[in-house]
Amino acid sequence: MNMPNDLPDSELRDAMLALGKAARKAARELARAPTAAKNAALLAAAEAMEEREKTILAANARDVKAARAEGRDDAFIDRLVLTAKAVEEMAAGLRQVATLPDPVGAITDLAYRPSGIQVGHMRVPLGVVAIIYESRPDVTADAGALCLKSGNACILRGGSEATHSNQAIAACLADGLKKAGLPEAAIQLVETTDRAAVGELIAMEGYVDVVVPRGGKSLIERVAKDARVPVIKHLDGVCHVYVDASADLAKAVRVADNAKTQRYGTCNTMETLLVARHVASAFLQEIGKVYVAKGVEIRGCAETRKYIHEAKLATEDDWYAEYLAPIVSIKVVAGLDEAMEHIAQYGSQHTDAIVTENWACAQRFLREVDSSSVMVNASTRFADGFEYGLGAEVGISTNKLHARGPVGLEGLTSRKWVVLGDGHVRS
Amino acid sequence: MNMPNDLPDSELRDAMLALGKAARKAARELARAPTAAKNAALLAAAEAMEEREKTILAANARDVKAARAEGRDDAFIDRLVLTAKAVEEMAAGLRQVATLPDPVGAITDLAYRPSGIQVGHMRVPLGVVAIIYESRPDVTADAGALCLKSGNACILRGGSEATHSNQAIAACLADGLKKAGLPEAAIQLVETTDRAAVGELIAMEGYVDVVVPRGGKSLIERVAKDARVPVIKHLDGVCHVYVDASADLAKAVRVADNAKTQRYGTCNTMETLLVARHVASAFLQEIGKVYVAKGVEIRGCAETRKYIHEAKLATEDDWYAEYLAPIVSIKVVAGLDEAMEHIAQYGSQHTDAIVTENWACAQRFLREVDSSSVMVNASTRFADGFEYGLGAEVGISTNKLHARGPVGLEGLTSRKWVVLGDGHVRS
Repeated sequence: MNMPNDLPDSELRDAMLALGKAARKAARELARAPTAAKNAALLAAAEAMEEREKTILAANARDVKAARAEGRDDAFIDRLVLTAKAVEEMAAGLRQVATLPDPVGAITDLAYRPSGIQVGHMRVPLGVVAIIYESRPDVTADAGALCLKSGNACILRGGSEATHSNQAIAACLADGLKKAGLPEAAIQLVETTDRAAVGELIAMEGYVDVVVPRGGKSLIERVAKDARVPVIKHLDGVCHVYVDASADLAKAVRVADNAKTQRYGTCNTMETLLVARHVASAFLQEIGKVYVAKGVEIRGCAETRKYIHEAKLATEDDWYAEYLAPIVSIKVVAGLDEAMEHIAQYGSQHTDAIVTENWACAQRFLREVDSSSVMVNASTRFADGFEYGLGAEVGISTNKLHARGPVGLEGLTSRKWVVLGDGHVRS
Repeated sequence: MNMPNDLPDSELRDAMLALGKAARKAARELARAPTAAKNAALLAAAEAMEEREKTILAANARDVKAARAEGRDDAFIDRLVLTAKAVEEMAAGLRQVATLPDPVGAITDLAYRPSGIQVGHMRVPLGVVAIIYESRPDVTADAGALCLKSGNACILRGGSEATHSNQAIAACLADGLKKAGLPEAAIQLVETTDRAAVGELIAMEGYVDVVVPRGGKSLIERVAKDARVPVIKHLDGVCHVYVDASADLAKAVRVADNAKTQRYGTCNTMETLLVARHVASAFLQEIGKVYVAKGVEIRGCAETRKYIHEAKLATEDDWYAEYLAPIVSIKVVAGLDEAMEHIAQYGSQHTDAIVTENWACAQRFLREVDSSSVMVNASTRFADGFEYGLGAEVGISTNKLHARGPVGLEGLTSRKWVVLGDGHVRS
């Protein structure tokens, strides 16, 4: 939608409302769209993306140039920049979503009740999904594709730093929709960079069914605080690995290494390592060498420092910290109960893992740790839509209601009740 | 919890916070409680309720006397009053919930991924559920039982008019918990009648995971507006029956009669009857006689009045109205599309039914009408937790996220991801 910047408030509100109304109308069409039409749109969009690779890269170059002129740091530029390979991957992602089963309309659990009616559940789109995100332009393709396949209209609000990139990508999606005979308003990009547009978007009850903010913590907290529509949000990822007294120490070193060092800046990276006293000496000396060799700063409890001399003393704040950096906090605990207490007190209910060979400990950890992903003998880094088989994700939810953990097609749908009778009435 | 009325704000806040902390602690114990212990608590509570029938009825008599003295109307007294039969039914309800399968800990869809990990879902309690309700004291037993069985701690806030009844019922539940060795704080009653307690309850992020308001629309709107925790809410029930051109008119009369007249005051009662022009003459003359004979006031469109002379002319407001009374609005429409347009514009996404013998029309209605319950050839009055086989319900949700429609044990739970490996790491 073309919308100039610096609109007066009332005109901005009207413009956003028009966007919402168009989305609501498109959502009704999309909810009943055949699977084949949705897939055709995704494949046509992928083709358009490949054909217009140069246009997309040129648009991205404009954004990158502006970001550099503003003195943005390397990490920022890194998230913003697109390469030919990235464009190909976006196109491949669209084709991948096309191959996923269509969740919409699936009926489950249809069964007869004593009254004679049949009662079951039908999976249905949520309606209109607003996605608010920063820098990464590939979110435009991912989020648009997932919303389309799940039968939702979406309103995308990318960061101002990626305006030209997002527009070029959205044009390909619009092309796909058009070719498949689906309403172009099914995927709309908010083109004004006015920050007030976000405020309007998250307050449009009746036009927006759910908001998914993707980005830094301050963005998500602001959206969650001010939203008048439901928010699927991802706050902190303070993830733990607990090495149990019954752990196989070779597996424990492998998991604790991977969970911390495979990537430092992701939400499913382990921040705190908990170690049962029984194996602290043997295990910490091993993992300490790994971390030191990789340049990971270690902040440990007093007991940890007996076994890892390079470790600094951790403070209370360290147990709450999501470092997103080559830093790890380590605490020696008496055993499973103390580990689970620590996770309950300091964790963020994102992803937590136990390393153990003991059946009962594994079962207790799985049942009792209240996090969106709970793992046995596996790296926390697996908490991801692709790894879980969702094909893609619009984000990872730390909500307790609706979707928890990676949110894919299913998280973008709900279930309504269907009742089939033959003139049945209630007595 | 004993809590005097008229506490100063800061003391009320502290008292509510203490309630929240106790609930959170109990929730962790309850989440891991064995099925047998939860069932034992329910059965012991049922027994206590039968043994103390006289005490409960005496407490209720105090409430009823006070309500009469305050000049409350008959409908109000009706909702408040308990009989020996009602107490028996509450006890039977507790036993019924004990027989339902335990949803907690059930693992589904556990499958291997190409990386070698197994990924699946485990059903888990939400944590702490706050229920805010008016007059009906039996909600105390129902809601307490459902929360307990689903592994949630609950904080119950009944209306001041039912204080003594609620306390007497809650004492039986506490007895059951104690006998089964479960924490008594698993089911807590807010004993102050101070309205500010509700404001505190719905703002206790970190201690309350979800709020379920049950009562009049003004209560629900106030809770939804001010809540800082998620709300499972039930707003309007503007339910429709659409009689299609291909309807079997005998079935149509039966369904339209039952949907309107079986009970007038319930949310799943039909408010608006939509009739395809093709059958308007034949059908409306029949159903008109039924409604007139039962004293139902008819407000129809101009065309309706051609066939039902007793009908008044409906205004635009009638199409939005939830009468909860012996009043029906009737509109003649061209066919399925106009009917679905009407439902989309004026409905409340609660429960809508089509009467038709046509396969394609039934399929389109099921797929395209975006309501929490969608029915073919069945009365809207079936939209109910008992009728759907949930055993009981804490309410009916008109939310689109999380639970839609009747909310039973499953709606009080969520699913977390479980990942099982053998030292697997991400590459």
